[in-house]
Amino acid sequence: MPNGEKAKEDLFIGIDLGGTKIITALVGKTGRIISRDYRQTEAAKGLDAVVARMIDAASEVMNGGGVVSAQISAVGVAAPGPIDAKSGVVTTPPNLPGWTDVPLRQLIQDGLGLPTALENDANAAALAEHRFGAGRGTEHMIYITASTGIGGGFILNGELYGGATGAAGEIGHMTILPQGPHCGCGNRGCLEALASGTAIAREARERVKCGIPTLIADLAKGDLKHISAKLVAQAAGQGDIEAQEILDEAMTYLGVGMANLVNLFNPELIVIGGGLTNMGARIFDPVRSIIQRRAFRAAAQVVRVVPAQLGDDVGVLGAAAVAMLSEKWN
Amino acid sequence: MPNGEKAKEDLFIGIDLGGTKIITALVGKTGRIISRDYRQTEAAKGLDAVVARMIDAASEVMNGGGVVSAQISAVGVAAPGPIDAKSGVVTTPPNLPGWTDVPLRQLIQDGLGLPTALENDANAAALAEHRFGAGRGTEHMIYITASTGIGGGFILNGELYGGATGAAGEIGHMTILPQGPHCGCGNRGCLEALASGTAIAREARERVKCGIPTLIADLAKGDLKHISAKLVAQAAGQGDIEAQEILDEAMTYLGVGMANLVNLFNPELIVIGGGLTNMGARIFDPVRSIIQRRAFRAAAQVVRVVPAQLGDDVGVLGAAAVAMLSEKWN
Repeated sequence: MPNGEKAKEDLFIGIDLGGTKIITALVGKTGRIISRDYRQTEAAKGLDAVVARMIDAASEVMNGGGVVSAQISAVGVAAPGPIDAKSGVVTTPPNLPGWTDVPLRQLIQDGLGLPTALENDANAAALAEHRFGAGRGTEHMIYITASTGIGGGFILNGELYGGATGAAGEIGHMTILPQGPHCGCGNRGCLEALASGTAIAREARERVKCGIPTLIADLAKGDLKHISAKLVAQAAGQGDIEAQEILDEAMTYLGVGMANLVNLFNPELIVIGGGLTNMGARIFDPVRSIIQRRAFRAAAQVVRVVPAQLGDDVGVLGAAAVAMLSEKWN
Repeated sequence: MPNGEKAKEDLFIGIDLGGTKIITALVGKTGRIISRDYRQTEAAKGLDAVVARMIDAASEVMNGGGVVSAQISAVGVAAPGPIDAKSGVVTTPPNLPGWTDVPLRQLIQDGLGLPTALENDANAAALAEHRFGAGRGTEHMIYITASTGIGGGFILNGELYGGATGAAGEIGHMTILPQGPHCGCGNRGCLEALASGTAIAREARERVKCGIPTLIADLAKGDLKHISAKLVAQAAGQGDIEAQEILDEAMTYLGVGMANLVNLFNPELIVIGGGLTNMGARIFDPVRSIIQRRAFRAAAQVVRVVPAQLGDDVGVLGAAAVAMLSEKWN
């Protein structure tokens, strides 16, 4: 078998399109990253400019790896949801203002002349952790990313579960408190509105506004805009009771959400990624203990809750995993 | 092909074991019920007596259908959960007091000399509605039974989803209100504790105890023990505001639970069975409207919510469907 032929079977390009940055990589079948490209999305310059940047980034990683287009098997794109994976259309991403029903898969495929697949970023990340990270070898795995928002994806019977139209996996929009705070999705009391970084910062701002004495106010130097989940965690780490209470409450809701998933899906593994996992035990301890308290014993005793392993590469590896899966369809 | 041979491929026995009655049927591959047997469980007489009654009932339906054991392909048993489907063990059914880790599959298999499979009743019912009822032809279907308790089963990618250890599908034990009423499972604010027939009756009793004027008290002739969900529905039908409020509140929670399932599973169909569906529009209207209000549009616009079609046969047809599936493994 000629060399070029062999390489063609093994190389993929993953493009992780975010609202602020694009991460692109040349990736081998085992998840090894051969070359990378980081650049700003510059979403304000419009769709055409973003697509051109994505195509340019793909060329860069091929150059970096010393390969040409003919050696690439497929391209995968992870984009902010909601998307329609089947038609390859990004529908109405809140992080990419002005994008409506963009046929991103086709645009990248035409631009690169390579078979391209599209998946939403949370599902792509679930695939990456399952294929290359904390979930290797599992059959029933739930991936959750807890960051400014809360998203996730389900690996059921060893495969990504998409549901009827690819819209499954909206973990962050389970209602946990029917009369709870309003959520960006239009619903109330969603897990995301109670336990995300955004929810933590909102609750902290409300307490500071009420004049409740807390280190958070000092750390923010009195500017409400400086209050973030990270800052709340910092205050909690320094012993601030209010900050600890805010985090404990949020993590309790997160645990309730996870207990629900345990009762519904009976997974063997829950992998938690995203910025909030930097809190370590302050997120994992309550989640684990609430699952044991609230879920059925049969399901609770078999599930492990672990941190994600792929860090900032999860998106681009997920995009590459989407490309690898798409080979089946081509 | 000799006649006996042909019949062997087509005939199954389904045994629906409940806390109060055993329903048994001889069933053809298409779900046609050829003969039936109804009898009391008489659980108080102990395990051996119940197993003997199940075996006797199976003989009865074979006699009724004019067939002998050699013509039966397989036997399926639907039993109250929790069970371990793989090992065929009924673990700790609340409806069968004194049963702990009963190897029911083996007991029936030995008693009848026929390959036997065991599944919990909610999963069996999901299989029945998918194979013979409202869910025919669907790939992603959620079955929910709303009765004294709330249970369910998931058909995902055309197959019953069991999870890591067969414990998936505990729809009734999703937490919808973290500080809500205590549930029999040990958790608080479960869907079952908020929206089941038992929850409706409990709320009605509390209002009557508080002396709130309501037709429910009159219909119960002042005896709290007479208050049931059925009686509350009757009072609501006669225009009683309290009764209507109790039902509306319960059905709102049911709708919240269903909206969660829509966001998580993106199903094409939700099939609702169980006694509460006798209320008709009073259950289906709020559930449908809350899904539209609370779930993501992409998922909400594709899901249909329909009543179960198999009525009281759902259990025995589910047991037969379990037998049909088990053929794959034998």
